[in-house]
Amino acid sequence: MKINLNADLGESFGAWKMGEDAALLQVVRSANIACGFHAGDPLVMRDTVRTALAAGVSLGAHPAYPDLEGFGRRPMTMAPAELEATVIYQVGALAGMAAAEGGRLSHVKPHGALNNQACEDAALADTVARAVRAVDRELILLAPALSELHAAGERAGLRVAAEIFADRAYTDAATLVPRSQPGAVLHGHDEIVAHVLRMLAVGGIVAQGGKVMKTPMHSICVHGDTPGAVESARRLAARLLAAGWELRPLPEMLA
Amino acid sequence: MKINLNADLGESFGAWKMGEDAALLQVVRSANIACGFHAGDPLVMRDTVRTALAAGVSLGAHPAYPDLEGFGRRPMTMAPAELEATVIYQVGALAGMAAAEGGRLSHVKPHGALNNQACEDAALADTVARAVRAVDRELILLAPALSELHAAGERAGLRVAAEIFADRAYTDAATLVPRSQPGAVLHGHDEIVAHVLRMLAVGGIVAQGGKVMKTPMHSICVHGDTPGAVESARRLAARLLAAGWELRPLPEMLA
Amino acid sequence: MKINLNADLGESFGAWKMGEDAALLQVVRSANIACGFHAGDPLVMRDTVRTALAAGVSLGAHPAYPDLEGFGRRPMTMAPAELEATVIYQVGALAGMAAAEGGRLSHVKPHGALNNQACEDAALADTVARAVRAVDRELILLAPALSELHAAGERAGLRVAAEIFADRAYTDAATLVPRSQPGAVLHGHDEIVAHVLRMLAVGGIVAQGGKVMKTPMHSICVHGDTPGAVESARRLAARLLAAGWELRPLPEMLA
Amino acid sequence: MKINLNADLGESFGAWKMGEDAALLQVVRSANIACGFHAGDPLVMRDTVRTALAAGVSLGAHPAYPDLEGFGRRPMTMAPAELEATVIYQVGALAGMAAAEGGRLSHVKPHGALNNQACEDAALADTVARAVRAVDRELILLAPALSELHAAGERAGLRVAAEIFADRAYTDAATLVPRSQPGAVLHGHDEIVAHVLRMLAVGGIVAQGGKVMKTPMHSICVHGDTPGAVESARRLAARLLAAGWELRPLPEMLA
Repeated sequence: MKINLNADLGESFGAWKMGEDAALLQVVRSANIACGFHAGDPLVMRDTVRTALAAGVSLGAHPAYPDLEGFGRRPMTMAPAELEATVIYQVGALAGMAAAEGGRLSHVKPHGALNNQACEDAALADTVARAVRAVDRELILLAPALSELHAAGERAGLRVAAEIFADRAYTDAATLVPRSQPGAVLHGHDEIVAHVLRMLAVGGIVAQGGKVMKTPMHSICVHGDTPGAVESARRLAARLLAAGWELRPLPEMLA
Repeated sequence: MKINLNADLGESFGAWKMGEDAALLQVVRSANIACGFHAGDPLVMRDTVRTALAAGVSLGAHPAYPDLEGFGRRPMTMAPAELEATVIYQVGALAGMAAAEGGRLSHVKPHGALNNQACEDAALADTVARAVRAVDRELILLAPALSELHAAGERAGLRVAAEIFADRAYTDAATLVPRSQPGAVLHGHDEIVAHVLRMLAVGGIVAQGGKVMKTPMHSICVHGDTPGAVESARRLAARLLAAGWELRPLPEMLA
Repeated sequence: MKINLNADLGESFGAWKMGEDAALLQVVRSANIACGFHAGDPLVMRDTVRTALAAGVSLGAHPAYPDLEGFGRRPMTMAPAELEATVIYQVGALAGMAAAEGGRLSHVKPHGALNNQACEDAALADTVARAVRAVDRELILLAPALSELHAAGERAGLRVAAEIFADRAYTDAATLVPRSQPGAVLHGHDEIVAHVLRMLAVGGIVAQGGKVMKTPMHSICVHGDTPGAVESARRLAARLLAAGWELRPLPEMLA
Repeated sequence: MKINLNADLGESFGAWKMGEDAALLQVVRSANIACGFHAGDPLVMRDTVRTALAAGVSLGAHPAYPDLEGFGRRPMTMAPAELEATVIYQVGALAGMAAAEGGRLSHVKPHGALNNQACEDAALADTVARAVRAVDRELILLAPALSELHAAGERAGLRVAAEIFADRAYTDAATLVPRSQPGAVLHGHDEIVAHVLRMLAVGGIVAQGGKVMKTPMHSICVHGDTPGAVESARRLAARLLAAGWELRPLPEMLA
């Protein structure tokens, strides 16, 4: 009866602000921190690490394609050696920032288009997993439950934490229903809470049509970048606590 | 009777090649590796780390201002907190790359305009030293002998290695004679060797006019980016060996 | 009895939003549009050009140092030939965007640190003016009244529009009182309006201590990036209209 | 009996040099000049424009995906509006540089992955053609003969110049034989000359297997980035002249 909540943080850049990090840090137990390639700059990274540590939130690197203008959401094609080095670079940079603040990096979660592609492309997923292992084989790979990325992490011998999404509907293939389809995104607080509690209760992903796919679930991904998102995450956390779940940093989920 | 030779390496970027790294790695004992801000990309960084480790050359990060187009040679003004985070980021990224190749970062040497400014501006130098210490207080700061940067490293409690330049003339203030003045750059192999051997013999920097300024000297900076530079470095190394000096990686100089 | 109001626009970048452009375009008559080096990306630039044209607002390029992370506010040192080409590049890019929307670029106003430095450094100002003239000698240079940049524009044979700042106090040297000093920034709507009307009435800059420095004044710079800024600009425009001033696009001020 | 030779130029960046532009400018009649997104910086662009004009070589913009590290060779996915604005930006920047040197841009040729994708994807090709037309409908689109990009240029009402490649073998679909297949790249000077002369003689692309596909041919693309490439281009030009062909700037090919 323990679970983790994670969210993407540190997505400001220079003069531009994004997200409600301070509020989210009161809700989640693990932070995926942008590493400067899709968002974040060194100062934002350091500030985010410091505030996350102060909130007792475990630190994760959130590496992305090199694409500030596209916020890492534009698919790119990189050679495997290039991509591997690109991920190592970002994870190393955030690990340095964690060390500078007396903390320690505990997980890695790819961002945006890189994450999406790695969830479906086994070879790409292996490249990402190899990069994570290369930097530090103690790092946890945080990957969507039942994805190719999750499988790649296990093939690489990494500890892998399986995540589910609080506000997204699933297909019968355990992938997210595309945003272009009806019902892809859950909006009501009660609907979101019910969705999450049901998946936790049955021990697996529950698809839009009711199909259940058993899987370990270590973490629930919540968002802070849309109106009401933080409030939604806060209510979810409260309902989980009320239902007897303990919220834990990611390393404690795999201990 | 032991000394280190260091050089800047890994300054290619993407499709653009620079320097004769393979040849230089046969000569120097320590490499200052570009971290992606003035040169180097993640793949170049990894390849450079790998070849340096294979050559038994110790690894240093060579952080710079964020200025690819200007190769880090253009003076900039950054707030101290920004600069500190910027240096931590780059050192962390290279430390990650070193870890990925089974190695370990042993020193940091700032690049270009950042180095030049830190040699004269004590506050800026303190910021750089603070950044290095923040990432890992075991790191050696490689700084020009008798510079403000050297002093800042000692104030920060870091191990500091003092470097001299093989092919540059010095003023009576122990700074480099500006390139705009006659005799600023030594060109002949024999002239360079004599300059270095004289400084090592007297135990200090010898200015253009003959003034001697006593200082520890741990490392000699050589270059590989101009025609004849590698050959010059090779001859210097040979003459040092012939004169009874042993060439050692930087950590062994401070052991 | 005609005057121009100008503001910096198009300062969003990728996923990051900044400023209240739609509201400001209802107030100002000329827009200084970011060109991608300190803010703005090609899509933001095009959208800003389109909405400015639709609002009957004249188009200006707002070139900056290459410094997205620092929002162009960090002083840099570039060689004159580099800086000249950098300004030409940005002005050309925005001119292309204007052409694509059936409009025409009418002025150039440097941004941030580049503007500040060019207001005090005659050689730097000459470089900027030379760049503007090189692209199109019909372009208007929008420069602070009585600044070195203004003088450089005249030396270059450009049409120069003199601007004053609505919410900033002036020294006896016609420069802005540094933000670190008391009274540097005017906050009250009435205070701002009175400051502007007084300068227009006496035909010159009025310093904090009352000293009057005669100068042509073609444009008033207003801001949209702080809370209340748009409302302040709106009130200023209303009071100017009420006082009998007509608000005109910049080209009409110099016709 | 007139033909154009074109080559990619201005692909240096900052401290990194690439290509033998001075030598190539003595051979080709039209230059595709990098616009800062895959290569080139403002100063390189200006210098290249100046030397091209001095050599009587017509000026073309060579826009690319925003990808300095990958030299514009990595496929990316951009939304049509983003891509259109990105191309307008680059073409405008180079047009500004041309104006600054008293010249005029006459054509646009997409670079690398953008060009490759636009040759096969009609929708992407339409986006590129729309961007070119938006900046200036007098611009010539330089596109591979029989490609989707060529067709898109005609759909957009642009003047389109058809190019063939001197040193590449063609498939029966008029596309380039992939480099991974035998015979994809022609190496011998005589082989290259014979290939080009045969295509000009029959008035169409001649595939590896002998199939002839009739097409106008306005320009031959040569390279300067590999050893021997400039010499090869020089010999091709000499043989064309000897065979009675006149070498003309691109605008004269479509006059």
